[in-house]
Amino acid sequence: MGRLTKQQDAYGQAMWDYLHHGRGFEIVERDDGLATVASGPAFYFRSYTAWAKMERQAIRLARGRVLDVGCGAGRVCRHLQDKGLDAMGIDVSPLAIKVCKQRGLKKTRVMSITQVSRRLGVFDTIVMYGNNFGLMGGFKRARWLLRRLRAMTGPDARIIAESNDPYPRPGRPGLKCHLAYHKLNRGRDRMGGQLRIRIRYMTYATPWFDYLLVSQDEMGQIVAGTGWQIARFFDSKGSGYIAVLEKEQP
Amino acid sequence: MGRLTKQQDAYGQAMWDYLHHGRGFEIVERDDGLATVASGPAFYFRSYTAWAKMERQAIRLARGRVLDVGCGAGRVCRHLQDKGLDAMGIDVSPLAIKVCKQRGLKKTRVMSITQVSRRLGVFDTIVMYGNNFGLMGGFKRARWLLRRLRAMTGPDARIIAESNDPYPRPGRPGLKCHLAYHKLNRGRDRMGGQLRIRIRYMTYATPWFDYLLVSQDEMGQIVAGTGWQIARFFDSKGSGYIAVLEKEQP
Repeated sequence: MGRLTKQQDAYGQAMWDYLHHGRGFEIVERDDGLATVASGPAFYFRSYTAWAKMERQAIRLARGRVLDVGCGAGRVCRHLQDKGLDAMGIDVSPLAIKVCKQRGLKKTRVMSITQVSRRLGVFDTIVMYGNNFGLMGGFKRARWLLRRLRAMTGPDARIIAESNDPYPRPGRPGLKCHLAYHKLNRGRDRMGGQLRIRIRYMTYATPWFDYLLVSQDEMGQIVAGTGWQIARFFDSKGSGYIAVLEKEQP
Repeated sequence: MGRLTKQQDAYGQAMWDYLHHGRGFEIVERDDGLATVASGPAFYFRSYTAWAKMERQAIRLARGRVLDVGCGAGRVCRHLQDKGLDAMGIDVSPLAIKVCKQRGLKKTRVMSITQVSRRLGVFDTIVMYGNNFGLMGGFKRARWLLRRLRAMTGPDARIIAESNDPYPRPGRPGLKCHLAYHKLNRGRDRMGGQLRIRIRYMTYATPWFDYLLVSQDEMGQIVAGTGWQIARFFDSKGSGYIAVLEKEQP
């Protein structure tokens, strides 16, 4: 998904309205007809103290020059900037970036993850919070992007990425509609949790895009052979988790 | 809209999940592409003390045999039943009616407003709360339904109906997307606030149906010559209001 037009900038508009008028929501539509309400703008504006415990723990591993991919309203960048780190936020939403600037972020770009390159400089940390490992899109694209991120980061670089295991936890049945979707996906050669979704807010709607949810095992398979390795996981009480990737040493 | 199939019973399913699992939401999609989140199941389960003031005031006018059209989770019927009135709730959602029964409602039917007739008996009060004047659908249909309701009610009968003025209040600009929709509607010979919508929840979606929001003036035009007259309005601080209709005496 490239830079969004005004009409496509659904979640940017929701954030804008939330910041300026105290309202806003985020509807997620999946290509099997599922429609849900996401945690929405309130989530994107959460201050550090309201973050999930694993997010507060893992962000301590950020250091040096940091790139926040899919920075939304800038909650992570702002925290890092306040800590004195050199943080840059990118997002495909022009309004999200405008919101970030209004909230005092110094370094921002309207830019897709597929557009990042060494032209932005060399980074020590890549952050993908709020399930933004999802922006990896799919198995092949994720591996391509991981190699690309490898080329624009220093030797001791880290990727701190949040995802959500889409499969039922042991002893839990899982929702039928999700199980059916995983099956549908496998039938069309996609990963089970490779969601095809769009975001809607009022009359705004993003284009359809792929958003990838993976189990920890699947993340391991994606990472293998890309020059990265999983250094550790931070778990939550639910299905969300954070992975810390570091470069494989030759 | 007639009786809903399982796959179409989006708001019934949301209420069911809310009652049994504590979750549920209601997405409203309009035929111009607008998508919003409605107040949803939590609203349908509100106890009397949490109702809007105008709702608490106007319900005191209910008497005798009462028909609650679009009864949802049965909040109004339950209140009336507890007060000792003879209240019957109808809804096109089989799951809504199942929820009503589980909550102890004695008289319920899975039935559309267009299916009501004297076969249900003669009523003294018709209640259409939670914007359910909207179920009147459109100008002509509303007038046809009002005549029909006239034939199945006693001489001193009342209709207590809630609506929402869709037009900007004096001195307020109104949202562009709504103003454009009113214009679109007038261009296709519909009332400005004659919404074409469907309700979505997870993979459930109702068929598209007309839901009518009117100003108090417009309601007066609809009612004129149907044998009913507007006896009074209960206003709120917002755009919502309740109209009490009584039979014109010859």
